[in-house]
Amino acid sequence: MATSNSRPSPNTTPVDWNTIVEAHERIRPRIHRTPVFTSRSLDKLTRAQLFFKCENLQKTGSFKIRGAANAILSLTAEQSARGVVTHSSGNHGAAVACAAAWLGIPSWIVMPHNTTAVKCRAVESYGGKITFCEPGASARAETLARVQLETGAAMIHPYDDDRIIAGQATAAKELLEEIGDLDAILTPVSGGGLLSGTCLGAKALRPGVRIFGCEPERADDAYRSLESKELQTQESSDTIADGLRASLSARTFAILQSHVRGILLVSEHEIMDTQRMVAQRMKLVIEPSSAVALAPMLRKGVLESLELPGRPDSHLPKVGIILSGGNVDLN
Amino acid sequence: MATSNSRPSPNTTPVDWNTIVEAHERIRPRIHRTPVFTSRSLDKLTRAQLFFKCENLQKTGSFKIRGAANAILSLTAEQSARGVVTHSSGNHGAAVACAAAWLGIPSWIVMPHNTTAVKCRAVESYGGKITFCEPGASARAETLARVQLETGAAMIHPYDDDRIIAGQATAAKELLEEIGDLDAILTPVSGGGLLSGTCLGAKALRPGVRIFGCEPERADDAYRSLESKELQTQESSDTIADGLRASLSARTFAILQSHVRGILLVSEHEIMDTQRMVAQRMKLVIEPSSAVALAPMLRKGVLESLELPGRPDSHLPKVGIILSGGNVDLN
Repeated sequence: MATSNSRPSPNTTPVDWNTIVEAHERIRPRIHRTPVFTSRSLDKLTRAQLFFKCENLQKTGSFKIRGAANAILSLTAEQSARGVVTHSSGNHGAAVACAAAWLGIPSWIVMPHNTTAVKCRAVESYGGKITFCEPGASARAETLARVQLETGAAMIHPYDDDRIIAGQATAAKELLEEIGDLDAILTPVSGGGLLSGTCLGAKALRPGVRIFGCEPERADDAYRSLESKELQTQESSDTIADGLRASLSARTFAILQSHVRGILLVSEHEIMDTQRMVAQRMKLVIEPSSAVALAPMLRKGVLESLELPGRPDSHLPKVGIILSGGNVDLN
Repeated sequence: MATSNSRPSPNTTPVDWNTIVEAHERIRPRIHRTPVFTSRSLDKLTRAQLFFKCENLQKTGSFKIRGAANAILSLTAEQSARGVVTHSSGNHGAAVACAAAWLGIPSWIVMPHNTTAVKCRAVESYGGKITFCEPGASARAETLARVQLETGAAMIHPYDDDRIIAGQATAAKELLEEIGDLDAILTPVSGGGLLSGTCLGAKALRPGVRIFGCEPERADDAYRSLESKELQTQESSDTIADGLRASLSARTFAILQSHVRGILLVSEHEIMDTQRMVAQRMKLVIEPSSAVALAPMLRKGVLESLELPGRPDSHLPKVGIILSGGNVDLN
């Protein structure tokens, strides 16, 4: 754990509504418009109306293809000629490999060696070339620099990239286009690409919507960053939510500081119980990282603590949940 | 295992297209129009275009609510006054309890004591009263007769009932309304209610569609019945597909004899592998009984053996799969 002294000023991102609309046009022919699921039994349990954006049903099994596709389809022929490179605990790697395969360009993916087998196989199935590294941010950065030097490939960062943020924003855009009067949206937060995109995509369509990031207690750098108003990092984590072990960047931190109402922390037990509940009640396979975004809603008194005690018309509050992915190893 | 001498003549069922349309109108406001899922990776694997009718996402977690709702909503006030009774290995029981609760009438469900806990809890959550019996057809019939004598409730048979068959037919009706040019439909078979309904609902809209029933090797009475042209029974079975342990009735056997192209048997290993594959590739939780309907498609050479070697316009054959339910015990 380390504290940085960077103090990014808010509102510096060039990702505006036009950028998001352009990203959506760019990737729309390639991705799924994922369905929005509801569940009466979970509504009853939470005393809210929940709207689940099912990115677990997205191509490559997670929302990551939105950002990766937008970034890679934005490259010039010259930029993409030597292929693309990234680091990823799994889903972003598969997304980069998949989008690279569409264009017929090579992709190199740096992954920690404790990545689940199913995520490695996914990268390989799209033709991505994996280089394993030790877990942790430093080892990963060193390995990545070496691969990039050897190949000359274009870097597609998992979240510290405006093209990625604009791509991830299209999930919330689709959700708001379908359910226009949401009171709040809960989304998992790791490096902050999805959460930043959710802020920018949702607030443009509905300025009053409250955005919450949800994070494992065991990887709580976004919580610490927003509490302390200084960017905090997370060297490594053993949370079961293997997609949420990264740290915010200055870019995503600045967006979150401007737009996020709060970060909600959840325990490992809550993550596992929520994942099982979604399988039993909704018949959906979600990965632990997705469960993180629903888990807070299952607590007693959460509506009051989120200041969502009902709507003026006496209907239940409407809450969007982004189910970010469904890649789990079932063996 | 026993052989009966009953020789039902075909085409004796009064379930015609009008009956099915009426059933659909009756239940439509109460049930979900379930989505039809596709999967490029499974299409690639099977060299077919698969269309999955997701009854695992249906109310109560299975198609059974279609038939139960149609039967119970068809009762006169006098008939329903003393409540309803049935026997069920699980999903039909939950469906009867759920539909009875809509009308505020009591329901009694006779279940074998080895029914999974999640299916028992489902029945109880709708207010159904469970009476446990020994596994096997004889013990079940005795217990049911006793409960019916004590309560005077109206019997809602799981499949040997035209109202049930007409209700189950609405799943195939919806599937064909959405994908009008299917070459074949595969559906699990147990007592034959869903398969009979699938025949009548699908053939009315597309007479040339080929209907196949899919059955565990360990509960193969439908296969033996159609092969021998005499109704065969199955006293009990230990197949993991716990929804498929019942035997055809004379009524369903007659419909199957007229309309079914063949019965496909699958092994316990195939059932488990298929269930896992659907979770990994489609992110859907299905119960083993549902996996039975997809499993044959994953075999080499199946298209040829089903006489589905492609379409005249050189497109892949289009195959509907009814994913019958998603109630599994994850504890």
